Amino acid sequence: MDRIPTKQDIIDAHERIAEHIPRTPVMRSEALDRAADAGVHCKMECLMPDVGSFKIRGVMNALLSLSPQDRKRGVLTQSSGNHAQAFALVAKKMGIPATIVMPRNANAIKKRNVLEFGGRIVECEPGDGPREQMVLDVQRKTGAVTIHPFNDYRIIAGQATAAKELLEDVPDLDAIVVPVGGGGLLSGTALAAHYFSPQTKVIAGEPSGADDAYRSLYSGSIQGNPTVDTIADGLITKLGDKTFPIIQQHVDDIIRVDDEEISSAMRQLWERLRVTVEPSGAVAYAAVLKENSRFYRQNVGIILSGGNVDLDRIPFLQ
Amino acid sequence: MDRIPTKQDIIDAHERIAEHIPRTPVMRSEALDRAADAGVHCKMECLMPDVGSFKIRGVMNALLSLSPQDRKRGVLTQSSGNHAQAFALVAKKMGIPATIVMPRNANAIKKRNVLEFGGRIVECEPGDGPREQMVLDVQRKTGAVTIHPFNDYRIIAGQATAAKELLEDVPDLDAIVVPVGGGGLLSGTALAAHYFSPQTKVIAGEPSGADDAYRSLYSGSIQGNPTVDTIADGLITKLGDKTFPIIQQHVDDIIRVDDEEISSAMRQLWERLRVTVEPSGAVAYAAVLKENSRFYRQNVGIILSGGNVDLDRIPFLQ
Repeated sequence: MDRIPTKQDIIDAHERIAEHIPRTPVMRSEALDRAADAGVHCKMECLMPDVGSFKIRGVMNALLSLSPQDRKRGVLTQSSGNHAQAFALVAKKMGIPATIVMPRNANAIKKRNVLEFGGRIVECEPGDGPREQMVLDVQRKTGAVTIHPFNDYRIIAGQATAAKELLEDVPDLDAIVVPVGGGGLLSGTALAAHYFSPQTKVIAGEPSGADDAYRSLYSGSIQGNPTVDTIADGLITKLGDKTFPIIQQHVDDIIRVDDEEISSAMRQLWERLRVTVEPSGAVAYAAVLKENSRFYRQNVGIILSGGNVDLDRIPFLQ
Repeated sequence: MDRIPTKQDIIDAHERIAEHIPRTPVMRSEALDRAADAGVHCKMECLMPDVGSFKIRGVMNALLSLSPQDRKRGVLTQSSGNHAQAFALVAKKMGIPATIVMPRNANAIKKRNVLEFGGRIVECEPGDGPREQMVLDVQRKTGAVTIHPFNDYRIIAGQATAAKELLEDVPDLDAIVVPVGGGGLLSGTALAAHYFSPQTKVIAGEPSGADDAYRSLYSGSIQGNPTVDTIADGLITKLGDKTFPIIQQHVDDIIRVDDEEISSAMRQLWERLRVTVEPSGAVAYAAVLKENSRFYRQNVGIILSGGNVDLDRIPFLQ
């Protein structure tokens, strides 16, 4: 797919994946409403079976779109964690050999799950440069089809289905708030709101210690992170040339939150919803708490994007 | 209601409460299936909004059955935790003043939630004797209607609706496994299976450190716990004269698990389902793991009964 997903592309993606993955619930809590001074509607992507994140949506859509010839070549991707798990599981279910380039320092739980799902891990040094070089090397050796974790319109159309479901379940949302890393979920959400509920604002939460998307949005060109310092390990990549223009056109704002705010939001979600949302998954709720006057008494949808926590390293208990 | 709930009583209870509380999801995980060597179907009562446990089912059914005169008198109950929270919340929503007798050493999170929901807490010393004395004292002073947390047929009929929903969602279950404390959930589950799916076995999990129900079932009379030593703080009460006969007639067996087994099962559920199941809520899954040869390749429903954990005291991190 070589164009920005249309409304019909997102409808098609949803039909393609809906028979393979369950609809995640939307949860509410009086305590969260009180804390945010708003009607908080949580889309529980962290409860996605087996993989614990929304990433399976994009992967499923992309792999189901491959030709039989491409399937035989095998598939290759890069990821620090949640995309890797989803990629390994979906490929296994479809009988496609999968290789995932992961940084050496990736979260232990996420690595274990990739191996359990039958994925082959190739390790690289942390950072954009070494990772991309390793992907090129592996591709040259294996001839596998490379699928980028977010800078791919099939992936973006898949991620858009989370917001599509949320807007079907809660049609009167004033805003949807999601985390931003590479921008796959954010650009997909922005397109879904644009097509299915144009009056709904789309706002992102981003860790202050990796605020490249914020700087990109306000400078008008894609920025990187010279240094990275955040517990939200899923949100450190920079935007891509496919996600950025969609974000520029359809995203209203990006709110930055520091690690203490992320950790505190995370604890609230564990206590009040009883789910182990991971730091990256709590960033959107942290953003709503931080700037709650913007959402005063509004209906706000929040995508709790993932729940894969290394239980020996729970940030609010360190 | 002064009779063992009939099939119609349970259907009526379900209709009465269904418009007030959402249907909790049934979740699956490849990793849990692998660990148990069975098809594991988890009824997520720990995700019940606001109160985080199945207890709201019985409370809702009991309070909705009160006469207008009784509602004016106010209501009174006793509980170490999850019943207390549900009682306070439902009473508040119905505009009924609620008093809850709680032991001094009850879980801090459960106490905080009771107060947030507008319940009045009267503290007592731990143990059956002091608690029952305090309930009598408060009843005499206030004239409130006393509702027992489990030894009440309205409560039992309400708790039965969890298994009824589970059997509707997964009709071919070979067994349902639930935790047992006072026996409200266990007797309700046993009745639901008896009426709606008689071929489904009902088995309980119980902490070894408070194994009164096991000893009661095999001695033929209600036993207490001379000493109590378990992390499953919701399961230390003994059976009642209304729950015990139902359990004798319809429960197939009780499996005892020690604290290490509970803690390890709890960690698995946190990692694989991404929910903060509490120790008492993990007991049924611990029982399935312990005696997994009994359930080999069967379809097993497990009620994950509650998710209220004091996050500063997570057993598997102590």
